[in-house]
Amino acid sequence: MGIRLGDLVERFGGQLAGDPNLEVQAIAPLDSAGASHISFLSNSKLRALAAQSQAAALILSPLDDPTVAATYEGARIVTTNPYAYFARAAQYFVSLSEAPAAPGVHPSAVVAAGAVVDPTAHVGANVTIEEGAVIGAHAVIDAGCYIGREAAVGEGTHFFANVTFHARCRIGKRGIVHSGAVIGTDGFGFANEGGVYIKIPQTGTVLIGDDVDIGANTCIDRGALADTIIEDGVKLDNQIQIGHNCHVGAHTAMAGCVGVAGSARIGKHCTFGGAAMVLGHLEIVDNVHISSGSMVSRSVLEPGQYTGFYPLAKNAEWERSAAIVRNLASMREKIRSLEKTIKTLTEQQ
Amino acid sequence: MGIRLGDLVERFGGQLAGDPNLEVQAIAPLDSAGASHISFLSNSKLRALAAQSQAAALILSPLDDPTVAATYEGARIVTTNPYAYFARAAQYFVSLSEAPAAPGVHPSAVVAAGAVVDPTAHVGANVTIEEGAVIGAHAVIDAGCYIGREAAVGEGTHFFANVTFHARCRIGKRGIVHSGAVIGTDGFGFANEGGVYIKIPQTGTVLIGDDVDIGANTCIDRGALADTIIEDGVKLDNQIQIGHNCHVGAHTAMAGCVGVAGSARIGKHCTFGGAAMVLGHLEIVDNVHISSGSMVSRSVLEPGQYTGFYPLAKNAEWERSAAIVRNLASMREKIRSLEKTIKTLTEQQ
Amino acid sequence: MGIRLGDLVERFGGQLAGDPNLEVQAIAPLDSAGASHISFLSNSKLRALAAQSQAAALILSPLDDPTVAATYEGARIVTTNPYAYFARAAQYFVSLSEAPAAPGVHPSAVVAAGAVVDPTAHVGANVTIEEGAVIGAHAVIDAGCYIGREAAVGEGTHFFANVTFHARCRIGKRGIVHSGAVIGTDGFGFANEGGVYIKIPQTGTVLIGDDVDIGANTCIDRGALADTIIEDGVKLDNQIQIGHNCHVGAHTAMAGCVGVAGSARIGKHCTFGGAAMVLGHLEIVDNVHISSGSMVSRSVLEPGQYTGFYPLAKNAEWERSAAIVRNLASMREKIRSLEKTIKTLTEQQ
Repeated sequence: MGIRLGDLVERFGGQLAGDPNLEVQAIAPLDSAGASHISFLSNSKLRALAAQSQAAALILSPLDDPTVAATYEGARIVTTNPYAYFARAAQYFVSLSEAPAAPGVHPSAVVAAGAVVDPTAHVGANVTIEEGAVIGAHAVIDAGCYIGREAAVGEGTHFFANVTFHARCRIGKRGIVHSGAVIGTDGFGFANEGGVYIKIPQTGTVLIGDDVDIGANTCIDRGALADTIIEDGVKLDNQIQIGHNCHVGAHTAMAGCVGVAGSARIGKHCTFGGAAMVLGHLEIVDNVHISSGSMVSRSVLEPGQYTGFYPLAKNAEWERSAAIVRNLASMREKIRSLEKTIKTLTEQQ
Repeated sequence: MGIRLGDLVERFGGQLAGDPNLEVQAIAPLDSAGASHISFLSNSKLRALAAQSQAAALILSPLDDPTVAATYEGARIVTTNPYAYFARAAQYFVSLSEAPAAPGVHPSAVVAAGAVVDPTAHVGANVTIEEGAVIGAHAVIDAGCYIGREAAVGEGTHFFANVTFHARCRIGKRGIVHSGAVIGTDGFGFANEGGVYIKIPQTGTVLIGDDVDIGANTCIDRGALADTIIEDGVKLDNQIQIGHNCHVGAHTAMAGCVGVAGSARIGKHCTFGGAAMVLGHLEIVDNVHISSGSMVSRSVLEPGQYTGFYPLAKNAEWERSAAIVRNLASMREKIRSLEKTIKTLTEQQ
Repeated sequence: MGIRLGDLVERFGGQLAGDPNLEVQAIAPLDSAGASHISFLSNSKLRALAAQSQAAALILSPLDDPTVAATYEGARIVTTNPYAYFARAAQYFVSLSEAPAAPGVHPSAVVAAGAVVDPTAHVGANVTIEEGAVIGAHAVIDAGCYIGREAAVGEGTHFFANVTFHARCRIGKRGIVHSGAVIGTDGFGFANEGGVYIKIPQTGTVLIGDDVDIGANTCIDRGALADTIIEDGVKLDNQIQIGHNCHVGAHTAMAGCVGVAGSARIGKHCTFGGAAMVLGHLEIVDNVHISSGSMVSRSVLEPGQYTGFYPLAKNAEWERSAAIVRNLASMREKIRSLEKTIKTLTEQQ
């Protein structure tokens, strides 16, 4: 289904250089876009590629426009953030080609008598919704999901197939929860008595704001006494573990396989690379960026980029360096001893 | 629903200083507890906070009691392990407020003719139970779970929604398995022939003792020829991977995201911090504690705390230190060369 | 059910020394095999154990045969790759004892009118199959699985219970997907505009070749514009995360908890130890082997074994070495300063 360039600039702004009635059929990357496509330039290093693009139209920034326009003959939409423009345009293309989920509850779904499902919501096959749960307007609960007692799913939020959302948890509007995610499972809390663990009931819940995305097979534990809190606009990738009583600030993003232990307090606008790990009961302030594979073992109270992983090497080289790392204390001793000897030598001169 | 202090000490022991007929409505942390709450002091560093607590009653140790009692005017339950006492009291509060799962099989569940479900057990909506499986008395199998052929679930064990428990696996009494856990999936075993992998059937199973907790989205592989064994009282957090033929000793606890490769043999009363990793075919004796983010690449034959992760630093500092780590061998060479020169210099004097 | 040794060598080759009519009942490890078992010797270090084995028959290599045959009195099947022979024999034993899944669709499964399920395929209880999906001949879709719109499952491929396979994804023949795996979830792609993330629709899919195994709770993201590609014979263990637009070459194997960020291009015949991590947008050539717990932060363009993890130590020793690692730059400065002083001293002589 084609989209007129004029339609795009009416919806999303930008300066159009070209025919507003030109129709594009899809978005494609710079190197493969053809005469029916619109493409985008979000990285100035690719200017030369853009200048030679076969795309019918390009989204690009005022900075890149003069250079590209010198040779590129297609239409141009000039905008300050071409990547965000591309994201919105792509959403628009998808909205035209995909039928929205039909309102209503599939006959195979099991919905408790006291649950409230908005008539505009979609509940798929083999879903279970327990007593007192509330499913908001235009929410989509795909096949096989489980919604616990008194849980609440906000307006327009989409649960993909096989999500588990436990009792009393709440998620706001326009959220996306991917398949296999488990929200509101018991936190890992035990008292140890003579070597035996006694379970501490986890009576808190999980409170999730608006516009939050949660990845496939990601887990967020419910709080022990208080609640686990995920603020607006947080984006969590797949296979993430968030411990009980954590607080994740607005618009923080975590890549796949990140783990956050209990009661960590993480600020707003932070980013975590894949497999970064955060110990419990510590604080990370706003605008902290943790590199992939790094272990945060103490509070981070100053914004910036932090890293801590062992550099990769050929195995034989690693064996050498790892053996020395194990014995760094003796190396330091040797240096101290050398310093002493040299001091003596110098004084003797 | 209120609980009399006298009721607590009758059930769980401790010396009560105060009115046994005083009723408390809930447990709350020291800093937020009010006149209807009972709180607890399990960390002597918080004595001052406890001494000023607004809680109606406090659980505390004989060691902390004199100091706290000097100013705190509420009732006190004095006991040697206040944290364990809190855990038991909290379980008791929950048992009073939550209705137990109703016995019976939900009509949407699919239970094979030859499966045996105890009449006191609860089987939720959209559950599948295969031929020959046995569900014990008072067990709770929540919605969407899958129980394979000839699998056995012990008395009082609770599977939260969407657990997968494969053929012939067994779990004992009073266990808890959280949503998304997969028990008894095939171990990762292949023979390589000319670069192509040939699957080795995994014909063992998983044998799990009593009082074992298994976290959300945690996986435990079935054995190749023999079985994977998880002893009594083991506590596994979320997102853990236990390889085939592992043996995990009683009362060992693992935090989230831990991975244990195949055929590792782990002792009793060990602890593993989050994202710790254990290579296969090695042994860890009893009472070993592995710090978060540490890789266990050889057997650990002596009890104690072990650690191995690269310390976090500002990214620029890490880049400096990582570059030197890569070249530690050359640094060692320099030191050796210095030692030689100094030896010569010293001898020349 | 017994198997004649003659039947084995007819099917799988090898030189039989012994009675072809001898029947064995099962395969067992060297140290526990008895008079009804066949065992195998795949590691020459265990020759002595094999020589004393009580097994009725042994599978072993021409290299080990003379030594073992000197004392071992049972039958022997001599073959160049005893481990692969064992794998095939074990598969044969399983095929005789396990009934294949019955063809047909369970009445509780919800199959869209426009989906095509081959009459020889098995679809279990509580499965959901959406419009336009195609399930091939002899495929097995166990209970609770979800198959999205227009997805395709190849001939003989087996989905264990509770797999999620999203719209338009394709998997080839003879694949195995374990429980809880999520294939084709949205990749983690956002444009950032003034600190707020805008979702980039993930319109690609996941294309999986033949003979691919995917572990429990493993996730493979669908591509953003192009597709994520997993070639023939790839073996993925549990809890793995593969980001959008990755390309994994044929016969590459990854152990549990591995993470691969988006757009990584991985060669053929590579191996990844458990919890290895790969950053995005990089290339790993064929025949690269990454050790467990290692972070691949740059392209690896030469075959070989690569490693990068901090060595484990007693905690006190680690604290010492980690403190020095943090200050390696100052250690280097000291050495430089020593070198200078010594140079001066030497010149003065």
